[in-house]
Amino acid sequence: MSADGIGKLRVRLGEVTDLRAVASLLDWDEQTVMPPGGAEARANHQATLGRIAHERFVADEVGELLEQAATQVDLDSDDDDASLVRVARRRYRKERQVPADLKAEIAYSASEGQHIWRRSREKDDLQAALPALRRNVELARRYADCFGDGDPYDHLLDDYEEGTRGADVAALFDALKPELVGLARAIADRGDAGIEPLPGPFDVDRQRAFVRELLGHVGFDEQIWRMDEVAHPFLSPIALGDIRLTTRYTPATLDGALAALHEFGHGLYNGSVAPSLARTPLASSPSMGMDESQSRLWENVVGRSRPFASFVTPLLHKHFPDQLGDVDADRVYRGFNVVSPTLIRVSADEVNYSLHVILRFEIERDLITGALEVEGVAERWSELVGAYLGTEAPSDALGALQDVHWWVGLFGYFPTYALGTVMSLQIWDRLRSEYPVIDDDVATGNFAPLRAWLTDNIYSHGAKLTSMQLLERVTGGGLEAEPYLRYLREKFGTLYGLEATSASSAAT
Amino acid sequence: MSADGIGKLRVRLGEVTDLRAVASLLDWDEQTVMPPGGAEARANHQATLGRIAHERFVADEVGELLEQAATQVDLDSDDDDASLVRVARRRYRKERQVPADLKAEIAYSASEGQHIWRRSREKDDLQAALPALRRNVELARRYADCFGDGDPYDHLLDDYEEGTRGADVAALFDALKPELVGLARAIADRGDAGIEPLPGPFDVDRQRAFVRELLGHVGFDEQIWRMDEVAHPFLSPIALGDIRLTTRYTPATLDGALAALHEFGHGLYNGSVAPSLARTPLASSPSMGMDESQSRLWENVVGRSRPFASFVTPLLHKHFPDQLGDVDADRVYRGFNVVSPTLIRVSADEVNYSLHVILRFEIERDLITGALEVEGVAERWSELVGAYLGTEAPSDALGALQDVHWWVGLFGYFPTYALGTVMSLQIWDRLRSEYPVIDDDVATGNFAPLRAWLTDNIYSHGAKLTSMQLLERVTGGGLEAEPYLRYLREKFGTLYGLEATSASSAAT
Repeated sequence: MSADGIGKLRVRLGEVTDLRAVASLLDWDEQTVMPPGGAEARANHQATLGRIAHERFVADEVGELLEQAATQVDLDSDDDDASLVRVARRRYRKERQVPADLKAEIAYSASEGQHIWRRSREKDDLQAALPALRRNVELARRYADCFGDGDPYDHLLDDYEEGTRGADVAALFDALKPELVGLARAIADRGDAGIEPLPGPFDVDRQRAFVRELLGHVGFDEQIWRMDEVAHPFLSPIALGDIRLTTRYTPATLDGALAALHEFGHGLYNGSVAPSLARTPLASSPSMGMDESQSRLWENVVGRSRPFASFVTPLLHKHFPDQLGDVDADRVYRGFNVVSPTLIRVSADEVNYSLHVILRFEIERDLITGALEVEGVAERWSELVGAYLGTEAPSDALGALQDVHWWVGLFGYFPTYALGTVMSLQIWDRLRSEYPVIDDDVATGNFAPLRAWLTDNIYSHGAKLTSMQLLERVTGGGLEAEPYLRYLREKFGTLYGLEATSASSAAT
Repeated sequence: MSADGIGKLRVRLGEVTDLRAVASLLDWDEQTVMPPGGAEARANHQATLGRIAHERFVADEVGELLEQAATQVDLDSDDDDASLVRVARRRYRKERQVPADLKAEIAYSASEGQHIWRRSREKDDLQAALPALRRNVELARRYADCFGDGDPYDHLLDDYEEGTRGADVAALFDALKPELVGLARAIADRGDAGIEPLPGPFDVDRQRAFVRELLGHVGFDEQIWRMDEVAHPFLSPIALGDIRLTTRYTPATLDGALAALHEFGHGLYNGSVAPSLARTPLASSPSMGMDESQSRLWENVVGRSRPFASFVTPLLHKHFPDQLGDVDADRVYRGFNVVSPTLIRVSADEVNYSLHVILRFEIERDLITGALEVEGVAERWSELVGAYLGTEAPSDALGALQDVHWWVGLFGYFPTYALGTVMSLQIWDRLRSEYPVIDDDVATGNFAPLRAWLTDNIYSHGAKLTSMQLLERVTGGGLEAEPYLRYLREKFGTLYGLEATSASSAAT
């Protein structure tokens, strides 16, 4: 392809990338700073941007440029141009099948749904939020229908985890479920093992200062990052130089710090893509699962590790001298690793977390296939919370209303949280084998080599490879549950003094 | 025109209105919350949005819809549809003449210029900011060239004050100049008249709380308003329900409160347009001058009035008990009306303010016609500050770098500040004649009737009428300097104990 041809393609794709970054900024704005009265206009803004981005991406001219380019690059190569053509072409073919009006309706409905969700959650009124949920389910089904036959859920999932099918996820989750439930039960049966939360309450202003300092150590740079507070934390990567993370604080716990580390992981990934990929569709992670592998890695595998406890303990002494002035790193480690069936997914411990995800996956899959109506969500939620977490939700705000996803049209997104968790331990195993002094570096707050390894091996590639290709490049294989299960058994077996065999046998 | 036809037109114009609102939001974001590292990407975002909004507005189809519609409405009517067609058609014809690429270049350059300006201002380094200024001047000239012959400055001014020419402005300003200089000199010659600023310093956190409470009384509604702090205050009307004002605080003075009242005036106007005009090009004021008439009205004619001093004094007692616990309303009135040639336009008193504007107008007009090169700006600035304000600027940060306008490509905008000031007193005269108890209401903090009068007579019309049509409808005549000059002579003549005749004779 001529330099001019690829240049034209880059201009067209750059424009679409700009419009999507702007939509992402509008979403950030809506969730953090917009006055409530702006909601209606914002829904129009998002619908217009979504429609135009779609129209301009699926234009015939883009298709012609892509087809020309496809004959002139080596589509198996991972150089920038070839990857751009390969990935954009795949997305083009998929998006061509979706009418612009439907995209606009989805965008409008998501913007509206966000506000309905927020109000309903504040009032703990799931009933008031059901019409918006129904509408989003209908739109998701119409969207899935654009891609023809097959399981509609697969088409939705494909947007977040390309090439992965609902049945694959169900099989993985069916394998995880008894292991996780078994481990959680074994821990519950163990009774008091001296694993208690750190004693609060923690003044929210002090938490803000603590989290600021903590993030500064791991790599938060004021030149390119922002930090805000919202009801449901998220990360907005507006550009390589404009990464916006959010968290939320409650006085009772230090969960806000872990939520911030989680979003930091997303942000570090999206801000560390190779600059040569800026303003292209490759300037992000390849999938939500791979993205999540990095948020979970920073939140849990790093943030809840024993070495990290050594690093963070002096910071805790400094910011919370009254409550934590005399705790040692072992106590901090235990404090961040209490296993207990909390009702809130984002506050869940590592053992129960994936169970939260699995129950959402099972509900949303049934919503999409039509096996479950929106009126039945609350009841199904109760059943699954009982079966998987062994507890019950006293309110919808602590149940189906806790997450915004379904109200903004995100169906097929939830499972990526658990897929990412599984990947994070596969990646971590490889990282440790290549970087044996990682524990010492984390314990002393030297995070630069960790960032460098992750950037070189994962982040810098952006979306050039699919998540499965990238995982294979890094680990030499495909998705494997075993590193995750082994990690949990070893970590919590030791913490809770379980026999490795009993934890394992409880799971079978 | 068929309902379907006007419907199609509304859809097209609604989309363009959305894109422009989004651009305005991006600008707000850039100036208030964006991490510095986002600048390059933001310039691309703005260029893309600007180009697409332009392309979609000037599309042939829009022209056809407008021409069809023009034959089917009464173009002299001020009903919603007729006004929409009249105004959109006029703007369409103008914008058709501007190539999309030039619009994109202007948007990109404005975004880039903003950051260069901010850095240069912080370092007081005008030299470093000259290339960006030169580039913006060149782009403004190229823009003016799109409209053919005639004074290029007229074409720029027309964007902000439709139908007004540079020569008209120069004539008005030439009439104002000696009067204002004369009044300022008379006040200076009067020496100490006991008119002193309120004694500070004022803790910035206390100022924030004071301004919040003050704005709540005049009409700031948390449901639709935001308030942020920036180097150069501005107002972003994102939508009728999303109005974002900004101010800046310095401990030495309470100027931040007046800046907030100023931006509140802009916001009240743009938020009080009739809801039936939402998402159309009519959902704003008709011109920058008319818009400014309302910011100046709230800042000065209301905010620096003797009745307002009665209203605000108890608030000052409450928020600043140490400094202001024993001041009375007369003292507060004097404190907000010190006439002194400050170097900063936005902090200028009412007598000197328009002189700041006039000197910028004279410089920018010469930049655009080519009579002045950017290298000569600092010297010309010094000359005019000496001639009009009788003082000198010790630095460029307090001189040509104090305002962002030229660095974001706003040429032809400055004069509207003085035009608006002139209009504000014409409108005020009419308002007083129809609403004689205004002083009592302001003194007791009852601002609802004032808001209602302004909404009915001015704000609700949006951009249906041009500023001159609207002014004529409200006042029965055209632009008149006399109400403004009379107001100044009476107010400051009394405050400073000048003989009316001596102030007047000094001016001739």
